[in-house]
Amino acid sequence: MGEVHMVEVGEKGETVRQAVARGAVVVSPATLRLIERGALPKGDVLTVARVAGIMAAKLTPRLLPLCHPVRLTSVEVELKLDQQKSRVEIEARATAVDRTGVEMEALTAVAVAALTVYDMIKGVDRRAIIADIRLVAKSGGRSGDFVREGEEEACTE
Amino acid sequence: MGEVHMVEVGEKGETVRQAVARGAVVVSPATLRLIERGALPKGDVLTVARVAGIMAAKLTPRLLPLCHPVRLTSVEVELKLDQQKSRVEIEARATAVDRTGVEMEALTAVAVAALTVYDMIKGVDRRAIIADIRLVAKSGGRSGDFVREGEEEACTE
Amino acid sequence: MGEVHMVEVGEKGETVRQAVARGAVVVSPATLRLIERGALPKGDVLTVARVAGIMAAKLTPRLLPLCHPVRLTSVEVELKLDQQKSRVEIEARATAVDRTGVEMEALTAVAVAALTVYDMIKGVDRRAIIADIRLVAKSGGRSGDFVREGEEEACTE
Amino acid sequence: MGEVHMVEVGEKGETVRQAVARGAVVVSPATLRLIERGALPKGDVLTVARVAGIMAAKLTPRLLPLCHPVRLTSVEVELKLDQQKSRVEIEARATAVDRTGVEMEALTAVAVAALTVYDMIKGVDRRAIIADIRLVAKSGGRSGDFVREGEEEACTE
Amino acid sequence: MGEVHMVEVGEKGETVRQAVARGAVVVSPATLRLIERGALPKGDVLTVARVAGIMAAKLTPRLLPLCHPVRLTSVEVELKLDQQKSRVEIEARATAVDRTGVEMEALTAVAVAALTVYDMIKGVDRRAIIADIRLVAKSGGRSGDFVREGEEEACTE
Amino acid sequence: MGEVHMVEVGEKGETVRQAVARGAVVVSPATLRLIERGALPKGDVLTVARVAGIMAAKLTPRLLPLCHPVRLTSVEVELKLDQQKSRVEIEARATAVDRTGVEMEALTAVAVAALTVYDMIKGVDRRAIIADIRLVAKSGGRSGDFVREGEEEACTE
Repeated sequence: MGEVHMVEVGEKGETVRQAVARGAVVVSPATLRLIERGALPKGDVLTVARVAGIMAAKLTPRLLPLCHPVRLTSVEVELKLDQQKSRVEIEARATAVDRTGVEMEALTAVAVAALTVYDMIKGVDRRAIIADIRLVAKSGGRSGDFVREGEEEACTE
Repeated sequence: MGEVHMVEVGEKGETVRQAVARGAVVVSPATLRLIERGALPKGDVLTVARVAGIMAAKLTPRLLPLCHPVRLTSVEVELKLDQQKSRVEIEARATAVDRTGVEMEALTAVAVAALTVYDMIKGVDRRAIIADIRLVAKSGGRSGDFVREGEEEACTE
Repeated sequence: MGEVHMVEVGEKGETVRQAVARGAVVVSPATLRLIERGALPKGDVLTVARVAGIMAAKLTPRLLPLCHPVRLTSVEVELKLDQQKSRVEIEARATAVDRTGVEMEALTAVAVAALTVYDMIKGVDRRAIIADIRLVAKSGGRSGDFVREGEEEACTE
Repeated sequence: MGEVHMVEVGEKGETVRQAVARGAVVVSPATLRLIERGALPKGDVLTVARVAGIMAAKLTPRLLPLCHPVRLTSVEVELKLDQQKSRVEIEARATAVDRTGVEMEALTAVAVAALTVYDMIKGVDRRAIIADIRLVAKSGGRSGDFVREGEEEACTE
Repeated sequence: MGEVHMVEVGEKGETVRQAVARGAVVVSPATLRLIERGALPKGDVLTVARVAGIMAAKLTPRLLPLCHPVRLTSVEVELKLDQQKSRVEIEARATAVDRTGVEMEALTAVAVAALTVYDMIKGVDRRAIIADIRLVAKSGGRSGDFVREGEEEACTE
Repeated sequence: MGEVHMVEVGEKGETVRQAVARGAVVVSPATLRLIERGALPKGDVLTVARVAGIMAAKLTPRLLPLCHPVRLTSVEVELKLDQQKSRVEIEARATAVDRTGVEMEALTAVAVAALTVYDMIKGVDRRAIIADIRLVAKSGGRSGDFVREGEEEACTE
């Protein structure tokens, strides 16, 4: 009871670690058009969300109690609008040379980019939903590489 | 282009603001049993996720570029296991006496609690998905109260 | 020796406080053109700098040892390119309803926006200089309003 | 099991809250002389510890999971050398106008000032001990004022 | 006067560093029973304090002005109740592969876990005292290993 | 449009990186005398500014969106008073063993030390100006060493 453990990673070797995560914000078609036209009062949703996602990746060990500080060598966050599904699709790719994986950094970047999108549209679309935040690929760890079925195109480099 | 605005809230009155948000982590049935039995190597998932969610609510204005600092008077985070749907259901309730709403605080608490759950189970279930993070109720603002259709039982107090 | 004091502000009344600060990054003409054309490898300098400036204003009491936490109701950061002087001009306006002024919040926003500009151009222009960070106007405090001579158009609202 | 609650303080009135905390670092007489003479390689122990204590008070709600964000109006940290007991005595006084007390802010300031002293002397005195961190007075809350027996001179103003 | 130095560690080799620190919160016997029975209104004291201690270890270089950022590979925080002495005993163990020691990380974890215990019991026991925060063992540095006399069982691994 | 990139540095080798930055706060002669005599109400300006600058260097990746976390091995901040020019001159030197440079850490230290000086003197000299924050030397990167013309004495070691 009450056990809480940060896993010891000191004995692992330093390798290149990469992880790709995805998620989406499901919005109304009217909201999607406003984002596209840059017509929301808080401003340029996609750029602000990218910046917020990148900064959040660097804060991951402050947010998640059992995450190790990690030496990120790169974070990329991409957002694109899917008119058919009326969704803002988000993808984050985190890379590090370290003893531990960067899945949580990629997932945190996606989650905070999605929260930022919601914050910027909530004045017009409070029913928007953050959906399907998931790991789609990882590489570089002892447990072997991973690509989520059906998202093989997301493989790490 | 490149416009970014933090909305001026100085002219609004200070009122009691409350918001309730929900979300879930969809896991495998085997993972759900491990959580229930407290048998995961990183420890007590539900308590750690609650603490992480509460702490993250307080960090909201650091994470989301255009959020105002807000005087939270309470944050509650609850997690429960839904065996039928094989999901960890998360609910957060944020309250403040301030000029601006606390939707983002409640949503951030849910998102970070969900990320913490994922972090603690990823060693056994890397395919778990964070799903359906949404505002279910808010009250106290000028724009009127809100309860999401179908989740009326979540109304604020 | 070694005295350090945070001024007690509890006896002051809560009033609307506003402050405007300005500064600049002096760059080469070639760099200015790259910023204008959005042709720098790190991306959209002006938007990223605005976001960074707004977020830094909220971090002011963490950065400056003797600053009080303050209830910002708005932060605005504007950047514009001055081709004649080959400078990126930065202006930040901070507003709060509080017992203490927001000069440091406005100045911190300008400084961090300027550092962000430098970070994004340093690959092509390491000789760029951050210049003339100054308070240009403040209002709302007991010590009276202030507008810097020669910058009267910057008056607070 | 696993319960974690941030107490709701929204219904409390805003009043002036003050708390005084004390603690000490027990060092060797030789170390005390080095501090006094300013002869430690890391520099001016007392000033650095004061600054660290003040800054830590402002971080209290980030450090302690269930603490509310609070509107500090002042933090004072004093250190003095007690040659007889070979101790660095630390006192912190926190003040706020808020709905919740500031005991934790005062105690956190003492603890972090003490850790800073230790950090600066550990090269010469790794056996030093941080001792007796305690609340000595508080005022302004609904539960009534408090002064620790034997330390009545520490009363809040 | 006014000298402040962060020691240069760049020339040191990267080695496995470990440090163990201990401390205690001295409470009333009635409080100890409430902790044991999980009957405090703020919830599960021991788990929340462990999480807070682990997270604080990661914040050490933000709290202590002259500490280096360090690559923690593990942090463990244990709390146990000593009925005889009416104390909550706290032990933290920090490990890193780095050029500098992790004493401050272990001591910070103990101090913040202790402050968290106090925060959760202060409603019933405001006279509780945080006592005896001390380094008990360290290994891996150039200055040689250390085990505090009388606490040899705490040796690092 | 809206592009934002953190440069991938994983393929670079780890080398000793050093950067020196300078800047100044231009004050009135009367203010300079108050600083010199330690007669300002907020206390010992130079020591507090040094501590703030060192701590800010460690926060650089939190402040600047596209900066990598970096393993600082040392940060030095020096301030001195130039009576002739009525300026507080600030110099910061940052060192790391890493894959990326530390220019932004040195510049951030100077900027925050300068903001701290302004904060401590603004009660008597609100017209003071932060001026000429610039990189004066860097070494250790692939792009070659750099020393600013006219400031060759600032070379890195």
